[in-house]
Amino acid sequence: LTKKKTSYSNRGMTLEEDINKTNDYYLLRKLAVIHKKPIPIQVVNVNYPSRSAAKITEAYYKKASTTDYNGVYNGYYIDFEAKETKNKTSFPLKNFHDHQLSHMEACVDQGGMCFVIIRFTTLNRVFLLDFPVLKKWWRQQKDPDGKKSIPFKAFETDGYELKYSLSPRLPYLDIVDRLIKQKDS
Amino acid sequence: LTKKKTSYSNRGMTLEEDINKTNDYYLLRKLAVIHKKPIPIQVVNVNYPSRSAAKITEAYYKKASTTDYNGVYNGYYIDFEAKETKNKTSFPLKNFHDHQLSHMEACVDQGGMCFVIIRFTTLNRVFLLDFPVLKKWWRQQKDPDGKKSIPFKAFETDGYELKYSLSPRLPYLDIVDRLIKQKDS
Ligand SMILES: [Mg+2]
Ligand SMILES: [Mg+2]
Repeated sequence: LTKKKTSYSNRGMTLEEDINKTNDYYLLRKLAVIHKKPIPIQVVNVNYPSRSAAKITEAYYKKASTTDYNGVYNGYYIDFEAKETKNKTSFPLKNFHDHQLSHMEACVDQGGMCFVIIRFTTLNRVFLLDFPVLKKWWRQQKDPDGKKSIPFKAFETDGYELKYSLSPRLPYLDIVDRLIKQKDS
Repeated sequence: LTKKKTSYSNRGMTLEEDINKTNDYYLLRKLAVIHKKPIPIQVVNVNYPSRSAAKITEAYYKKASTTDYNGVYNGYYIDFEAKETKNKTSFPLKNFHDHQLSHMEACVDQGGMCFVIIRFTTLNRVFLLDFPVLKKWWRQQKDPDGKKSIPFKAFETDGYELKYSLSPRLPYLDIVDRLIKQKDS
């Protein structure tokens, strides 16, 4: 009998679906309370048909001023953004906005744990990048020879790879534990 | 010369507007990062007119599964709900939902600070009620002689009154400081 190495992939789910499932697991096991924030929508017109639910008939997406996810884990405020890219060699910084970076910086200043989770969909590899690393790359953009994207190599050297598992699908809190240890030491 | 006692009222703003202004102040002064969560909306239909923004043409409000506000303050995860009532003698418990209570309880279990801010609009008085107090009232509902609302007196004895000021309008973090001291002592 040969022992087969079990490998879990994302099985066609989006990164967001994977993280939501993971958060459901954490919530159910009472390990953390982390939720996806609703998408901000500007409502312009609403109809109120009698005897049925209010129907929004005109609305527009607003630009998110913060990040995708936040919550609390073991006394720590957790705040992160999740992004996917089809790129194979780098992650384009244009996927972030100034106000998202400012938001994360302000949260870190208040003692929160901030990071990004990036999936290279074509490579099917997922990395967690702690905020200080992202900030470094964000800042160098404005340099005369600044890069417009974070090279894949930087994820391998300065990030933490997240490996899919059966349950939870994307155990990112294992990495957060390591970040907390570093922070508190 | 007589010294006039300056009194600030809510000046026709809703409780939510007062809290949002307060949060803006806290954010700007780098005292805390606390935001109102977007209202959850189920989008059913979207039009994509060429050269203009995507227009949502059919959508519905979803029931909020968590609370109105969350964020980070001085290392603490902050999570609260804000409610107004026209009642003068009590606050009806039906204004809360089971899943909101469960959410706050789960956050407290993770070391978060959870509370509600209630405005008695007719009396123009605002109180902060710490989660354990709310929980006690929530639980007694199911008793054979359980009350369906929290008497105003309970806010005066077991809550903290929030007084309007010029800036920030509703300095609720002063009370959170006291709650943190109690918690950590
Ligand atoms: Mg995202
Ligand atoms: Mg509310």
